[in-house]
Amino acid sequence: MSSRDDAASAAGPANILPRITDAAAFRKLPVEALPALAGEIRDFLVASVSKTGGHLGPNLGVVELTMAAHRVFDSPRDKILFDTGHQSYVHKILTGRSDGFVGLRQRGGLSGYPAQDESEHDVIENSHASTVLSYADGLAKAYRLRGEDRHVVAVVGDGALTGGMCWEALNNIAAGDLPVVIIVNDNGRSYAPTIGGLGNHLATLRLNPSYEKVLDAVKEALGRTPLVGPPMYEVLHAIKRGMKDAVAPQAMFDDLGIKYVGPVDGHDIDAMTSALERAKRFGGPVIVHAVTRKGFGYRPAEDDEDDCLHSPPAFDPQTGLPLKSGGTRWTGVFADELVAVADERPDVVGITAAMAIPTGVHKLAAKYPERVYDVGIAEQHAATSAAGLAIGGLHPVVAVYATFLNRAFDQVLLDVAMHKLPVTFVLDRAGITGPDGPSHYGIWDLSVFSVVPGIRIAAPRDAQTLREEFREAVGIEDGPTIVRFPTGAVPADIPALERVGGVDVLARDERKDVLLVAVGAFGQLAMETAERVRGQGFGVTVVDPRWVTPVPGVLADMAAKHRLVVTVEDGVRNGGFGDSLARTLRDNGVHVPLRDFGVARDWHPYGTRQELLTDLGLTAQDLSRDITETVLRLTEGSEVRV
Amino acid sequence: MSSRDDAASAAGPANILPRITDAAAFRKLPVEALPALAGEIRDFLVASVSKTGGHLGPNLGVVELTMAAHRVFDSPRDKILFDTGHQSYVHKILTGRSDGFVGLRQRGGLSGYPAQDESEHDVIENSHASTVLSYADGLAKAYRLRGEDRHVVAVVGDGALTGGMCWEALNNIAAGDLPVVIIVNDNGRSYAPTIGGLGNHLATLRLNPSYEKVLDAVKEALGRTPLVGPPMYEVLHAIKRGMKDAVAPQAMFDDLGIKYVGPVDGHDIDAMTSALERAKRFGGPVIVHAVTRKGFGYRPAEDDEDDCLHSPPAFDPQTGLPLKSGGTRWTGVFADELVAVADERPDVVGITAAMAIPTGVHKLAAKYPERVYDVGIAEQHAATSAAGLAIGGLHPVVAVYATFLNRAFDQVLLDVAMHKLPVTFVLDRAGITGPDGPSHYGIWDLSVFSVVPGIRIAAPRDAQTLREEFREAVGIEDGPTIVRFPTGAVPADIPALERVGGVDVLARDERKDVLLVAVGAFGQLAMETAERVRGQGFGVTVVDPRWVTPVPGVLADMAAKHRLVVTVEDGVRNGGFGDSLARTLRDNGVHVPLRDFGVARDWHPYGTRQELLTDLGLTAQDLSRDITETVLRLTEGSEVRV
Repeated sequence: MSSRDDAASAAGPANILPRITDAAAFRKLPVEALPALAGEIRDFLVASVSKTGGHLGPNLGVVELTMAAHRVFDSPRDKILFDTGHQSYVHKILTGRSDGFVGLRQRGGLSGYPAQDESEHDVIENSHASTVLSYADGLAKAYRLRGEDRHVVAVVGDGALTGGMCWEALNNIAAGDLPVVIIVNDNGRSYAPTIGGLGNHLATLRLNPSYEKVLDAVKEALGRTPLVGPPMYEVLHAIKRGMKDAVAPQAMFDDLGIKYVGPVDGHDIDAMTSALERAKRFGGPVIVHAVTRKGFGYRPAEDDEDDCLHSPPAFDPQTGLPLKSGGTRWTGVFADELVAVADERPDVVGITAAMAIPTGVHKLAAKYPERVYDVGIAEQHAATSAAGLAIGGLHPVVAVYATFLNRAFDQVLLDVAMHKLPVTFVLDRAGITGPDGPSHYGIWDLSVFSVVPGIRIAAPRDAQTLREEFREAVGIEDGPTIVRFPTGAVPADIPALERVGGVDVLARDERKDVLLVAVGAFGQLAMETAERVRGQGFGVTVVDPRWVTPVPGVLADMAAKHRLVVTVEDGVRNGGFGDSLARTLRDNGVHVPLRDFGVARDWHPYGTRQELLTDLGLTAQDLSRDITETVLRLTEGSEVRV
Repeated sequence: MSSRDDAASAAGPANILPRITDAAAFRKLPVEALPALAGEIRDFLVASVSKTGGHLGPNLGVVELTMAAHRVFDSPRDKILFDTGHQSYVHKILTGRSDGFVGLRQRGGLSGYPAQDESEHDVIENSHASTVLSYADGLAKAYRLRGEDRHVVAVVGDGALTGGMCWEALNNIAAGDLPVVIIVNDNGRSYAPTIGGLGNHLATLRLNPSYEKVLDAVKEALGRTPLVGPPMYEVLHAIKRGMKDAVAPQAMFDDLGIKYVGPVDGHDIDAMTSALERAKRFGGPVIVHAVTRKGFGYRPAEDDEDDCLHSPPAFDPQTGLPLKSGGTRWTGVFADELVAVADERPDVVGITAAMAIPTGVHKLAAKYPERVYDVGIAEQHAATSAAGLAIGGLHPVVAVYATFLNRAFDQVLLDVAMHKLPVTFVLDRAGITGPDGPSHYGIWDLSVFSVVPGIRIAAPRDAQTLREEFREAVGIEDGPTIVRFPTGAVPADIPALERVGGVDVLARDERKDVLLVAVGAFGQLAMETAERVRGQGFGVTVVDPRWVTPVPGVLADMAAKHRLVVTVEDGVRNGGFGDSLARTLRDNGVHVPLRDFGVARDWHPYGTRQELLTDLGLTAQDLSRDITETVLRLTEGSEVRV
């Protein structure tokens, strides 16, 4: 029995879903069949994602909304665009891809985001928030200029609206009077409860008592798990009866010149369909404010205040609890150390961009709520408000995924570094990540941020050095610091034999063949590689620079005593640590050959981190073979060729 | 007679201004003296900036606004923050720095932006727009946490409000209910008339007939030049009598939870003072909407539709016309070629971020208005809406200053490049710029954008190659391209002897000592350098790679035939072309020593471009000396040491 069969049986008999082989098949369904299909889709999502892991909560919330969009608009002629593409699972199902969920986010399987090579219905392949309205603006302008009569529909969360790009795009869409239908999927929280003035305003629109009363009643009706509750159709119908499909002009968006329709119950297919039909007929920019519940229809996800079911690993579908708990994670080590430092230093405060739990800042918030600022999905503001906090005498710690700090390069460069301000950026999920695909890879930070004058970047190799280097970072008061570490479980500590000029010597060999410089979490990989090269009869000394930017000067001295220098880093090679060390050697007149290993500049697919590292040749086996061959060539050749 | 005396005499007798030796002296002035002082400040600004060049229009517009802020708030205890710091000249005068204007934006002189080492009243040193509210948010949070009772005042233009960071910050300021006073300096245009939904909305507030009528009457009263018109005091008093100091709740900002005061006549000191006093007492976030005229009080600047007096070089104070006209500029060559390409290719469209004239896109707009999109001060949106346009079948050309594309790194990386979309970014003012100081330097692009998979970056050396490489760029349809060139006049064309593997050979020498690889506009510098090295008896071949990313493969072959490879680029060394070529040589097993010259990773001061290049050792004299010494060492030493 295949996994697919498992999923199907877990979900109970599916009558309609198997018939959705493409978007046309879905559009041909009689309208009466839709509520039942919504129920089947939810059951399917829970059953399927409980096996593979993936974005559950967001997709349970957009089932009816996505169905309505595909009824009213003619994809792929019309373009339905999803912001933060992880809310596209229902779209994938409705365009005939439910079979692919068995391999969701796995090597060779279905992407967790829209993917153009999967379907002509997919457009935006990446996952960074708040971009969709800009794409929509450009597409609508192109269709107008080319005289093509197509509709552009953008689905965006209320959380993503806190990102500045949405504001930039709204201004342009309004000024151009472009026929863009913006569906605001408002569940009142993004990763965490949406913060900010906009959030409060949406809440005012959303939280009228009758609406809340109905939702509560529905929640009761649903029972403890939807898999064994009453048929979905009845539940959704109950919501519909209680809801007013309000159409009201709304001051704020109206001021910008954008029509507002709503709030609409986002779980009422009829109401959503009729709102979208009105929006489509209008012919100018319209916001359709759909009120939804994240995790709707699956009690563990609805009740999930900490958002563990936003994007869980494999879990028990009955309870929503993870099937296995991993070891200590890098994030957890940082989270605890941040609290410990904050206990001693009242000037240390935390900043998160709507990801307090995933980045570990929630622990600080639990102890010192007034010392953590959740700025929304707004990395630019995170960086520059940190500059303001630092001018005001505090030492902010900005905790973000490595991939997201790219959004604030200019702010880190000018607003923080040019002002020589003490702000510490903690980059989680640095390096190759895995199932979230290329737009989540944290492989750019070492290259991009190493150009910033005065910045110092640390790459800890284990829990002990993470704690240590984080403390060193918050101790630096004349400029910004970065501490970067990868995703996953933290490896066992690798003790240093000694520290020389700030550099940890992890393994010493009196035969001065190879100096192997291991960046951060590749410490373990380097130790294994060195062992194999030693097995071939060559001496390898392994060092961890700890602080990779600026390059410790002692490395030039160490390099000069070896026949070959090797660097290995979990980041793109271009402009990375290897390039920096090579430049340092040139500048110091050290002319020892250098081999730099890292991530090739390319778009790498999704898969597990280990699969990807293997593809990239970043294994002890591959590295040791290359190093051994290079040393052999150096030994044999009179000519110095690497 | 010193320049300072010149300025004073040109401005007529100044009675009050010389007494403003510091902020306290200004605050002690009787209120009756302020309108006359405003007149003196305007005369001083016109007389002074006409000699040095600088930001004129913006500062003429904020004279009274800045005076009112310094009356109501107690700087430096309270913090008065200026967005886009070029509007801080009046602030500098009021804090006792008028003597420094003789050396404005010149080496060792007064900065064109706030500068902490000039004054304790200065905070934000950089010039990128839309950051001020984020600083204010952080500062206000810090003061609250530390229990300090200080006010934070942020001055921001209506144009800068189109930038997404302002939206992110407004949400946070509102949610935190922070006591930040936001002065919106609304002149209805930033560099160009402000675009977008917000702009339309502000216009609705601003353009009530009575207000316009008064301003027109005042304009008449001013006569042709304010220097010979009636005393300023009378003029300003006339405005005041005609203006209503309206205080009205305003829906849009109110929806976000921010109080709104206005519109206030920004040229009425009394009205501004009273509005700011109310805002200060309120204790929560307040927007004070000040309506001003850019260039107010100086007819040539007020009538300056094309905004030539936004930041002019030295000019005739009577007419506002520049004292000398330069030769053909890089921008002009691009502007003409863009139109020529657009004539042939209906799919080519232009995008500007509120800088159509400075980037040359206005020429395309004049001919094909429907094919140019001004997106506001919104580089992120510029990049991603370009992605949307490209998905829609067009080839967008995004023309921005190099320094500003840093804001859209993530969007170029993921939204454009990951989707393999044909968008051409034209980077003006790349490399060292000059009087605008470090935050305007375009020295990061080669490093930062060369990490983007699939991107191609061209650096033309002269007008001919700019035209040629721009055409090649818009001919590439499977990914983004960048064409980058510096500020200033374009040098004479340097014809190639031949083209080998895409690389132009500019000078050939059969003595294979040095291969000198010159990036872009450093072609001329390289030719002069080569000439000097040849004078020392060594052979130098000079090549221009034209496309610097990816590195042309033929360079490895060429390098292998020489004893030394030298690169010279107008960008930061870290991760720049030198690093890329060194990596290419390593990867190809070519082990020829390499010297890479470029800009040191540091904050370089303002001055002329030539002064700065000299400081950096980027002159033919310095380069040739270094190269000659290196070749000599290679000749003498048995050991290969560079």
